[in-house]
Amino acid sequence: MNLHEGKPFTSLGPRIRKSPFFNATRKAGYHTYTIYNHMYMPIVYETPEIDYWNLINNVTIWDVAAERQVEMAGPDAFRLAQYICPRDLSKCQLGQGMYVPLVTEEGGMINDPVLLRLAEDRFWLSLADSDILLWAKGIAMAKGWDVNVFEPDASPLAIQGPKAKPLVANLFGDWVLALKYFWFKETELDGIPMVLARSGWSKQGGFELYLTDRTRGEELWNKIMEAGKPYHIAPAAPNQIERIESGLLSHGSDMDMRDNPFEVNLGKFIDTETEADYIGKSALQKIKAEGIKRKQVGLKWNDQSPSNENHLAVFKGDKRVGKLTSSAYSPRLKHSIALALLDIDQTEIGNVVSIESANGRLDAEVSKIPFLKASI
Amino acid sequence: MNLHEGKPFTSLGPRIRKSPFFNATRKAGYHTYTIYNHMYMPIVYETPEIDYWNLINNVTIWDVAAERQVEMAGPDAFRLAQYICPRDLSKCQLGQGMYVPLVTEEGGMINDPVLLRLAEDRFWLSLADSDILLWAKGIAMAKGWDVNVFEPDASPLAIQGPKAKPLVANLFGDWVLALKYFWFKETELDGIPMVLARSGWSKQGGFELYLTDRTRGEELWNKIMEAGKPYHIAPAAPNQIERIESGLLSHGSDMDMRDNPFEVNLGKFIDTETEADYIGKSALQKIKAEGIKRKQVGLKWNDQSPSNENHLAVFKGDKRVGKLTSSAYSPRLKHSIALALLDIDQTEIGNVVSIESANGRLDAEVSKIPFLKASI
Repeated sequence: MNLHEGKPFTSLGPRIRKSPFFNATRKAGYHTYTIYNHMYMPIVYETPEIDYWNLINNVTIWDVAAERQVEMAGPDAFRLAQYICPRDLSKCQLGQGMYVPLVTEEGGMINDPVLLRLAEDRFWLSLADSDILLWAKGIAMAKGWDVNVFEPDASPLAIQGPKAKPLVANLFGDWVLALKYFWFKETELDGIPMVLARSGWSKQGGFELYLTDRTRGEELWNKIMEAGKPYHIAPAAPNQIERIESGLLSHGSDMDMRDNPFEVNLGKFIDTETEADYIGKSALQKIKAEGIKRKQVGLKWNDQSPSNENHLAVFKGDKRVGKLTSSAYSPRLKHSIALALLDIDQTEIGNVVSIESANGRLDAEVSKIPFLKASI
Repeated sequence: MNLHEGKPFTSLGPRIRKSPFFNATRKAGYHTYTIYNHMYMPIVYETPEIDYWNLINNVTIWDVAAERQVEMAGPDAFRLAQYICPRDLSKCQLGQGMYVPLVTEEGGMINDPVLLRLAEDRFWLSLADSDILLWAKGIAMAKGWDVNVFEPDASPLAIQGPKAKPLVANLFGDWVLALKYFWFKETELDGIPMVLARSGWSKQGGFELYLTDRTRGEELWNKIMEAGKPYHIAPAAPNQIERIESGLLSHGSDMDMRDNPFEVNLGKFIDTETEADYIGKSALQKIKAEGIKRKQVGLKWNDQSPSNENHLAVFKGDKRVGKLTSSAYSPRLKHSIALALLDIDQTEIGNVVSIESANGRLDAEVSKIPFLKASI
């Protein structure tokens, strides 16, 4: 497979930000990148399949500094955080993270960050790709609230895979093994400051190190690569194959402002009964009460995956009933898989629909997600 | 020159949006693209130099659909537009556009769109690369104003170069020649609806056609390419060489939230004396009264341009006095040029400073901007 074939080039200019790990990733030989939150983010090193097996079998190191943070700090920080998050944040303890679908007043999804509570009055949102900094800052200003909203010097580096635990325990101590999922602690490695969280955009287990001194990115990367040698560590990146197998969503691909959380199986993260006031509450209550008209499902089929370049249309007979939102060939399942948004009457497990690909229609079967269980 | 050398690849996936002209640009053979407002945008076809000469000598067609629009419509549309724009919008007539630096409460630049007034109570912001949709929508909601804020189906296609006028007059009629700079009119071409504006991110003259039916992008592109043959039309893109020569700014590269409009020579677009209330007014009044501490200047030097990958540091002797924000080799001037942000005491025309490049220091002279006069 010639990975270069048909792929456009891009330029490296000063308009797009470089991560603190940028030089390290370049030396490590990344092949393909995207732009995410106005920052370059490597997404392929060898091939998506080789990177995938490194993640599944061993341990991988990912430059995900492009998951930028929005910090909310000050007397009204809790008030602002609660207002923009549709979950009851009084339940969020210090040192705890929570996955929060952010929505507009109409209930449309604008991001799906992890919220980290660093202090009673200090929060981070670890973002998918949209300028929530502008959203949060504009709202705080318009409300006249006393809260400082800014992007802190905090750049996540993910360590993911089944051998992440022994590697990170080796570097930081056995306390990391006791961290609950999404919990975190401020720590350091040979004086390099960071927030260490048990989290990451895979279901193979692992940690995210939020480096809080951007001048020390290459140093941190190199220390981890060195310590990871016995575990066969390899540079990699958020992997499309594994994350679709695991049912992890990518904002912009699997949902956007036109979709609500209930449609993409995120209803369990929405507190419609809480007393707390938040943006979109009445819209989400109404959607929940009335029921959704379309829903995200898994699709599987035996042929090779069609091009994942666009949102391919899905049909039932002559009727268009939805669209693919992301797809890949699963090397472990040995068939193709996709996430799709379908009309609600087409979402029963086992239902067969057709995907409209460049090479004609492909029959696919509605399947449960995740396609594969987490190894965390 | 091997354009591929050292350049990373990127992938084409469903996460990033495709412009209505995407298929047309691919068939036209774009070589390099970037991601802008969550959308692919071609930036090089042949080489930056060949594209440049096509723009300087003839006429070029650019897919700039990634300059997405934010529409503000409804009873409080003027109120919202005025609140987020630091210019007196009562002066903006129907059919008129205005360049507006958008700022935070602290006066930091978050975008520099063109505002188009489509009706008394209907505006578009034609954006640089940041989610002003979230900014404007969040503020309107927090204020409780009665205004609909959304991204309309409007995708600019630019026609730029000295032969843009005869070409566009040929297609649309001689009325286009009477359009004043930044003014626009709703029109159509063989039933393809659009807003036609005299504008564009070059100083070689031309128009932007805001296509308002995204299903007809390829059709519009092809009609213009066909009509442009006698004028030697070529596909091209926002050109870094020409725009630096002309002193046009790129948000993210030449300024960002850490910079105020006065520092980057945009003070003439700020109305600090108006009665209108807008975000950042008191901060901008204070900055204007106290004077700025650093300022954007041009730099020129005889060697080849160093890598434009990063914001290179600028020194005066041992003292760091600023940074390059964008640079290129000018084929018309036959020397290198750059935009730079320097400490105010280093900004006198003729002052010699040093640029820290990978190959050592380069002496450069402070120069007026624009480097070359507009041909509009």
